[in-house]
Amino acid sequence: MEHTYKHIELTGSSTESSDQAIQNAIAKAAESVKNMHWFNVVDTRGYVEEGGVKYWQVTIKVGFRIED
Amino acid sequence: MEHTYKHIELTGSSTESSDQAIQNAIAKAAESVKNMHWFNVVDTRGYVEEGGVKYWQVTIKVGFRIED
Amino acid sequence: MEHTYKHIELTGSSTESSDQAIQNAIAKAAESVKNMHWFNVVDTRGYVEEGGVKYWQVTIKVGFRIED
Amino acid sequence: MEHTYKHIELTGSSTESSDQAIQNAIAKAAESVKNMHWFNVVDTRGYVEEGGVKYWQVTIKVGFRIED
Amino acid sequence: MEHTYKHIELTGSSTESSDQAIQNAIAKAAESVKNMHWFNVVDTRGYVEEGGVKYWQVTIKVGFRIED
Amino acid sequence: MEHTYKHIELTGSSTESSDQAIQNAIAKAAESVKNMHWFNVVDTRGYVEEGGVKYWQVTIKVGFRIED
Amino acid sequence: MEHTYKHIELTGSSTESSDQAIQNAIAKAAESVKNMHWFNVVDTRGYVEEGGVKYWQVTIKVGFRIED
Amino acid sequence: MEHTYKHIELTGSSTESSDQAIQNAIAKAAESVKNMHWFNVVDTRGYVEEGGVKYWQVTIKVGFRIED
Amino acid sequence: MEHTYKHIELTGSSTESSDQAIQNAIAKAAESVKNMHWFNVVDTRGYVEEGGVKYWQVTIKVGFRIED
Amino acid sequence: MEHTYKHIELTGSSTESSDQAIQNAIAKAAESVKNMHWFNVVDTRGYVEEGGVKYWQVTIKVGFRIED
Amino acid sequence: MEHTYKHIELTGSSTESSDQAIQNAIAKAAESVKNMHWFNVVDTRGYVEEGGVKYWQVTIKVGFRIED
Amino acid sequence: MEHTYKHIELTGSSTESSDQAIQNAIAKAAESVKNMHWFNVVDTRGYVEEGGVKYWQVTIKVGFRIED
Repeated sequence: MEHTYKHIELTGSSTESSDQAIQNAIAKAAESVKNMHWFNVVDTRGYVEEGGVKYWQVTIKVGFRIED
Repeated sequence: MEHTYKHIELTGSSTESSDQAIQNAIAKAAESVKNMHWFNVVDTRGYVEEGGVKYWQVTIKVGFRIED
Repeated sequence: MEHTYKHIELTGSSTESSDQAIQNAIAKAAESVKNMHWFNVVDTRGYVEEGGVKYWQVTIKVGFRIED
Repeated sequence: MEHTYKHIELTGSSTESSDQAIQNAIAKAAESVKNMHWFNVVDTRGYVEEGGVKYWQVTIKVGFRIED
Repeated sequence: MEHTYKHIELTGSSTESSDQAIQNAIAKAAESVKNMHWFNVVDTRGYVEEGGVKYWQVTIKVGFRIED
Repeated sequence: MEHTYKHIELTGSSTESSDQAIQNAIAKAAESVKNMHWFNVVDTRGYVEEGGVKYWQVTIKVGFRIED
Repeated sequence: MEHTYKHIELTGSSTESSDQAIQNAIAKAAESVKNMHWFNVVDTRGYVEEGGVKYWQVTIKVGFRIED
Repeated sequence: MEHTYKHIELTGSSTESSDQAIQNAIAKAAESVKNMHWFNVVDTRGYVEEGGVKYWQVTIKVGFRIED
Repeated sequence: MEHTYKHIELTGSSTESSDQAIQNAIAKAAESVKNMHWFNVVDTRGYVEEGGVKYWQVTIKVGFRIED
Repeated sequence: MEHTYKHIELTGSSTESSDQAIQNAIAKAAESVKNMHWFNVVDTRGYVEEGGVKYWQVTIKVGFRIED
Repeated sequence: MEHTYKHIELTGSSTESSDQAIQNAIAKAAESVKNMHWFNVVDTRGYVEEGGVKYWQVTIKVGFRIED
Repeated sequence: MEHTYKHIELTGSSTESSDQAIQNAIAKAAESVKNMHWFNVVDTRGYVEEGGVKYWQVTIKVGFRIED
């Protein structure tokens, strides 16, 4: 089938890990977006406090199928 | 006039050609977006089956004018 | 807190200056988007007429917090 | 032989296809430039009207040999 | 399943069209590579003769699954 | 109409501002180039003297229509 | 010594983590490639299902020494 | 003479304009760095508050001559 | 306030994980740099030994506020 | 003074070395262009024959001052 | 003819010069690859010892024709 | 061991060759920096005078180990 997909760009944050920041962004998006299929990482950054990473922040693009 | 435009990123697919994948994405978007003015190609890819291209997939940005 | 942010891409225009084109895009977006936090410039361009810049056009990404 | 080549950047347009936009740019350039050898695509974009592509616009670099 | 994929980079050529150059590269690769899944376009270029495109040349990456 | 456009790359300078460096490059080009339509910024730089910017230098591409 | 190295591009997948997707790609390559020395990450992406990451997919380049 | 230059990367901020953010970064650097010659813009961004730009933030590279 | 920030580029290593390589770089930098605020990832790579990752190496930029 | 500079893109070739390919492009351009000030390398490539480099080909941008 | 080409990525090293590192990579590849036509430089780097370059390392892509 | 490395960006110049410009930058840096391990080329440019290269200028990043 000739589907069309839309991409949205999100930044998720986590105090735990860079992978978890991605999971948080996808979980939050899932509250309002259906049919998400894939993501890809655009940028990984974070906030530093007292010589360590306080927040991981990962920007991703998420693709979802536009319903027919 | 000092218009503002918004860009959305879409991936269209077609079994025929890369140009048709773009046409399909724009036709699908036109169902819900008004005032589309231009697009530009971000990425061209596709799925391969039995030694040939089965689906062309082209990712585009589409710009449309935000109504005043 | 583990906030999630969404980015949108806009092009603002101005007959005055490149900075004003950014201000116009943000002011227009503020009519419908809440919790905008930052922007970054993606592309600066413009239209030329009679040997001068007629319109400045600046494409920006704007990030806003998705409400919990 | 130790030839020198010059590159020029052109945007061709076509109502038909992206490939034809390239052909049009090269045909137009051939009216004034000799010894063109190759091109490469820099950007593919277009204008949208009534839910379809009205003009394909492809920006290319064309290389030609500077005569000795 | 946790598959591993390998990517190879190929340039196909065609006197007909840019899409056909991609088809030719994939058809040639299919003679020796199994399990090809997708491709993406890296570069589109060509040779120019007598004011027109003589050869379209498209460089693609092709991904195939490494068998277990 | 199926116009062809040519792009030239220029660096303008100004002691005043980055926007004025663009205006200066376009004004200078207008002395010999007709039908300029648009520009886009490629690079912004400048010379520093005594702890301040002495010259703003902005590199732009300018597109103009090749006459039929 | 004046060694020569070859690079191959692989995509590994994992249901666990992005780091593990890299480990899986390297382990799979080690079945047929000797003298691997280093890798670098080219792209991080994944498949999404039920509001979470189902597969992490990381594309890497791996360098190995060509034997003398 | 065969000088060597070192580059440092700075982000300046200003409530006024993007150009002033660059001036502020250079003025601050001038307190401790001698022989600065040029800068180039790496990134332009800013903070948004109440539908307008509150802070312009411009990241630049500054080059200075290492004294002999 | 109109702060100025300086960025430094570091590569941290870890035998454990890519996230830990970032933590190690920041912890090391904290021994001599004050007021670090954020980092962003520039490159992720590593050394391979016996079919697995021996060292993760992540290159980051770290931004810190220059004191007034 | 507020000079304007124009950039042209050239590919020089040499059987000797990559540096000499640049010298050849500049020497050829000097036959018709005045006031050249600087160049920067865009791409380095070459032709291979019998297991060695037959031609070095270096693409450069050259900037020259437009006369007042 | 509608040839297909394959590209491989290699890093050559040399204690002498960056050009020689390219020659070494091509000479090594010629032991097992036929029909090599061109290369292009991807990255130039090296190892430093006692205040000088000990090894030049140049990464190139080499294209060769797949035999019919 | 889990070392941390710092990168600095330098531009070296030479009237002789592009390779020598790199050697000069490294030799100059060695007067004040210890434990330099590698460099990579960021940009190659130069000044032109009387139809030839007067100065080669190569910008490199140099990595050195931060002592424990």
